Amino acid sequence: MSDDDVQRLSKDQPEPVPGGVVAPRGFRCHAVEAGIKDGAAPRLDLTLIYSEVPAVCAATFTSNKVKAAPVRVSAEHIRRGKVQAIVANSGNANACTGPRGIQDAKTMCAESAKALGLRASQVAVCSTGIIGLPLPIERMTPHFPALAAGLQNVDGDRVARAIMTSDTHPKSIAIEVMIGRTPVRFGATAKGAGMICPSMGTMFCFVTTDAAVAADELKKATLCAVENSFNRISIDGDTSTNDTVIVLANGQAGNRCIESGTPMARQFRAALQYVMLTLAKMLVNDGERVTKFVTIRVIRAATHLDARRIAEAVANSMLVKCSWNGGDPNWGRVMHAVGYSRAARLKEEMIDIYFDGLIAARGGLYAGTPIGELKKVTAKRDFTVTIDLNLGAADYHVYTSDLSQEYVEFNSQEYAIRVAK
Amino acid sequence: MSDDDVQRLSKDQPEPVPGGVVAPRGFRCHAVEAGIKDGAAPRLDLTLIYSEVPAVCAATFTSNKVKAAPVRVSAEHIRRGKVQAIVANSGNANACTGPRGIQDAKTMCAESAKALGLRASQVAVCSTGIIGLPLPIERMTPHFPALAAGLQNVDGDRVARAIMTSDTHPKSIAIEVMIGRTPVRFGATAKGAGMICPSMGTMFCFVTTDAAVAADELKKATLCAVENSFNRISIDGDTSTNDTVIVLANGQAGNRCIESGTPMARQFRAALQYVMLTLAKMLVNDGERVTKFVTIRVIRAATHLDARRIAEAVANSMLVKCSWNGGDPNWGRVMHAVGYSRAARLKEEMIDIYFDGLIAARGGLYAGTPIGELKKVTAKRDFTVTIDLNLGAADYHVYTSDLSQEYVEFNSQEYAIRVAK
Repeated sequence: MSDDDVQRLSKDQPEPVPGGVVAPRGFRCHAVEAGIKDGAAPRLDLTLIYSEVPAVCAATFTSNKVKAAPVRVSAEHIRRGKVQAIVANSGNANACTGPRGIQDAKTMCAESAKALGLRASQVAVCSTGIIGLPLPIERMTPHFPALAAGLQNVDGDRVARAIMTSDTHPKSIAIEVMIGRTPVRFGATAKGAGMICPSMGTMFCFVTTDAAVAADELKKATLCAVENSFNRISIDGDTSTNDTVIVLANGQAGNRCIESGTPMARQFRAALQYVMLTLAKMLVNDGERVTKFVTIRVIRAATHLDARRIAEAVANSMLVKCSWNGGDPNWGRVMHAVGYSRAARLKEEMIDIYFDGLIAARGGLYAGTPIGELKKVTAKRDFTVTIDLNLGAADYHVYTSDLSQEYVEFNSQEYAIRVAK
Repeated sequence: MSDDDVQRLSKDQPEPVPGGVVAPRGFRCHAVEAGIKDGAAPRLDLTLIYSEVPAVCAATFTSNKVKAAPVRVSAEHIRRGKVQAIVANSGNANACTGPRGIQDAKTMCAESAKALGLRASQVAVCSTGIIGLPLPIERMTPHFPALAAGLQNVDGDRVARAIMTSDTHPKSIAIEVMIGRTPVRFGATAKGAGMICPSMGTMFCFVTTDAAVAADELKKATLCAVENSFNRISIDGDTSTNDTVIVLANGQAGNRCIESGTPMARQFRAALQYVMLTLAKMLVNDGERVTKFVTIRVIRAATHLDARRIAEAVANSMLVKCSWNGGDPNWGRVMHAVGYSRAARLKEEMIDIYFDGLIAARGGLYAGTPIGELKKVTAKRDFTVTIDLNLGAADYHVYTSDLSQEYVEFNSQEYAIRVAK
């Protein structure tokens, strides 16, 4: 159901509105240069998103068992009740930092809360950057009063820039949709290169909405939207210690509170998923040194799990990703990744592979399409590989990228360089 | 037990003997240039290993569900009874080639058998090279009489060279060990970059021995040796469609037939594993554009499965491999791969990480060892990363490599270039 709604939304292209995370009513933000990020010129690296009224909050966090301190602290605060603000920094992930890391994450919440007149447990905290170095908390604490004093409701892009690490540009979106008869806004920003993360660690997505929504429906809608967006993207197969998605809904749109199972809940879920999927695709496109955006679509698998395993194996195969980098329509490597995917059921002689609309393999064999035609597809920046198993009715798709020489170079020196500073 | 025996063998360094796969009594080989491989100058690409008497045979094949034609044909022949010869080609994997591929693999066996005076089912067949193109069988068939006529028992290196694809040098080993009171020889050759395979597809290992050994013991010994050698190496996490290990034992040493559970079986297993492990390490060292040989050692895990999952996650992490490439002692990335490894039990605050003898992280935190000292270890071509979970008694280790820019470049164009020819 949600898929149809999202597809309709995608076709209708909901009207974008300006303001990013502060587009919805009752949200404000600010960001400052606290000197956490490296580099000659100071850059925004400490930011605050604030709801003027208590908000309903839902979140998902990394599945990595090595969890960063801010993930642990935020999960606890969100479990306890209403979170009204998010404080985030870039340049340091505060991961693998032990008790001191927990203390530093709590300090970020406490200092934000003090400046905002909240309790520390009403603040969620997120950090992104290098793993294993302590947060320069002493450099950060003087900035919280200015962060709170500077809160404004016009320029959400400031948040988007302050959470960037290896991202090449800020990523945000804001839309207005009708839920029932009420115009409701969603604002969102994201960074990083996926659930499956880039070197500097971590994918974030912060969503604000002025919808009034029941806490349990917000939770379900968030899980569902994350499953169909950030859990569908893959840059390098490495899951970060810090991945975080937080949704704040403050009810200022004045709609009747959205309850699960209603038509309004469907509309809400579709809009939330649209926002997250749009950002998820932006993350892949801005993956570290990425030159290709490839949709891997598995159709007619025996089971959903098989379809997923195959899509993910193909998306994460180093050899397949190298092929995309060179624009090489190497369907044999796709076959070989399908083969080792741990899918329970497949028949090699039934598998068809397409590059966009062109058939490359039919029944597991080269289909005879001229190589020059196939290369025209794989030469594009954005194309789809469809793997038709001809077995059942289960489909799955993921979004992925190529693997470039520049990715390897970029990721070969981080720690020593940072520590040497 | 076997581990101890192998370690003793490693320390004692069994006397190498010349001859490679024809070092054991009663084996002969030859190789020719059949024009299967690309390139200006003709290169050896079709080869035959032959036992003068019927041999006992054991084999293991790829776990990839997309299996190449020669894998299917060889598995059938080995299941049926005594294999006395191996025919192999490089330059084309005969994978994803359908019924024609099966026919071509059978033709390779039949033509070899005819030239040798055997039945086709007494020949195992192996192919390595590009996936998805038909074998140029018409170019190959004229060469079988010359292959048989040229068989000799001096230069096993010819086989090693004929099975090379992206390998930079031929790899073979031959040793003589005492089993009971009888000197027994093992010869072996291998190619490719691991069970976890390189772009041109496929790892092969062919072992010959003149030991007399019971069929069931040979099977067990082979499985055990493969588990502790080729299943411990990883270059890029991609499992080929063609991986094959074949062991031929022809009994010409005159020892009493080795039965399972005897002291002689222990000696036999230790020697077989020594031979395979030596070649497995050579494969990693000659992995595509590899600049580092890294042993990932997980100790004191709660279970064997946990230890294995962690070792493999760290070994296959693109980000960790990029670190090795730059000589970056990035223990935080090791922690993050440990965290997403799907190990059932781990406690972040108990984990210690060492680079060779130097502690990098203690209790999940930076241990304070000067970065310059750690860099001296990771600057080396060959070092060990030890991950101590401090939880239980299970250990596991794997051998892996770095990921280089040159690997990406090398693997970005194969198919289009080959097809264009």
